[in-house]
Amino acid sequence: MDHLKEKTLSSTPLYKGKVIDVSLQEVELPDGKKSKREIVNHPGAVAVIAKTAENKIVFVRQYRKPLERTIVEIPAGKLEKGEKPEVTARRELLEETGYTCENMEHIISFYTSPGFADELVHLYYASGLKAGPQQAEEDEFLDVLELTVEEAEKLEKSQEIYDAKTSYALLYLKIQQK
Amino acid sequence: MDHLKEKTLSSTPLYKGKVIDVSLQEVELPDGKKSKREIVNHPGAVAVIAKTAENKIVFVRQYRKPLERTIVEIPAGKLEKGEKPEVTARRELLEETGYTCENMEHIISFYTSPGFADELVHLYYASGLKAGPQQAEEDEFLDVLELTVEEAEKLEKSQEIYDAKTSYALLYLKIQQK
Repeated sequence: MDHLKEKTLSSTPLYKGKVIDVSLQEVELPDGKKSKREIVNHPGAVAVIAKTAENKIVFVRQYRKPLERTIVEIPAGKLEKGEKPEVTARRELLEETGYTCENMEHIISFYTSPGFADELVHLYYASGLKAGPQQAEEDEFLDVLELTVEEAEKLEKSQEIYDAKTSYALLYLKIQQK
Repeated sequence: MDHLKEKTLSSTPLYKGKVIDVSLQEVELPDGKKSKREIVNHPGAVAVIAKTAENKIVFVRQYRKPLERTIVEIPAGKLEKGEKPEVTARRELLEETGYTCENMEHIISFYTSPGFADELVHLYYASGLKAGPQQAEEDEFLDVLELTVEEAEKLEKSQEIYDAKTSYALLYLKIQQK
């Protein structure tokens, strides 16, 4: 696909943060003209569909500062440096919800915002859950909810569930039920 | 949900760009402690599931600089200032693929990366397509592909289709077929 490639002419770091790095790249377009690309680098993340013995799905309600509101999502979190996604998935499920699981199966991975960011989300399916105490990180505050798929779809209609990975998860679960 | 709210203590603009703005916010957590949040503001975007009379779905292959590779996605693009999402959807479908459509139906909207960005994607379903010449923007180079859902699923397995909105669209189409 070399006829579409954008060559990097220069890259200017704009910000190096705790979660994201931001840079401005000057690129050469396929027709030889120049343009600029604003790029956010992110360590990647996991998200977990966790189904209880009662056939409920585990969600967390969390304040999302970029949105200035709470939303309800499936448990998720960032990869630590060098951490394998499955390890992150088990760690985040435990931290956010208190659940450990027997099986953690990879479903799919996808980029969330390929136009400006390289965040890759790895989606897992956890089964054989065992409940325990929530172990949220110091700066993380959340409510745990256990909902049927139908209850979750109502929260999606009212835009309390409002993010791509969780809406993907609901469609995925819907297909499993059919 | 006030028990989860993070109050803004200060906001430092880090970058104001063409597509994104980046800021660092100091917040007060629900327990009174302080933390920092890195926030990317984005104008929002649309994505379009477009089905041809031959029951094929229209995709575009595009170089995504943050990923340093091409991926295959459903047509998509950013909202211009003050532009209604349905107008953006019709404009982007025309610019990227040359298609105009009779019906442009809103399916769902979702945040792509609520942990660090406020990008909201509005997903539409276009039917009654009429082909015409592609009218890509100056700095946009792309190939148009028309694929069955099954063909697209193969590209998803090989990670040529590799982004959240397009994977969501494929599940959505799969459910329609059932």
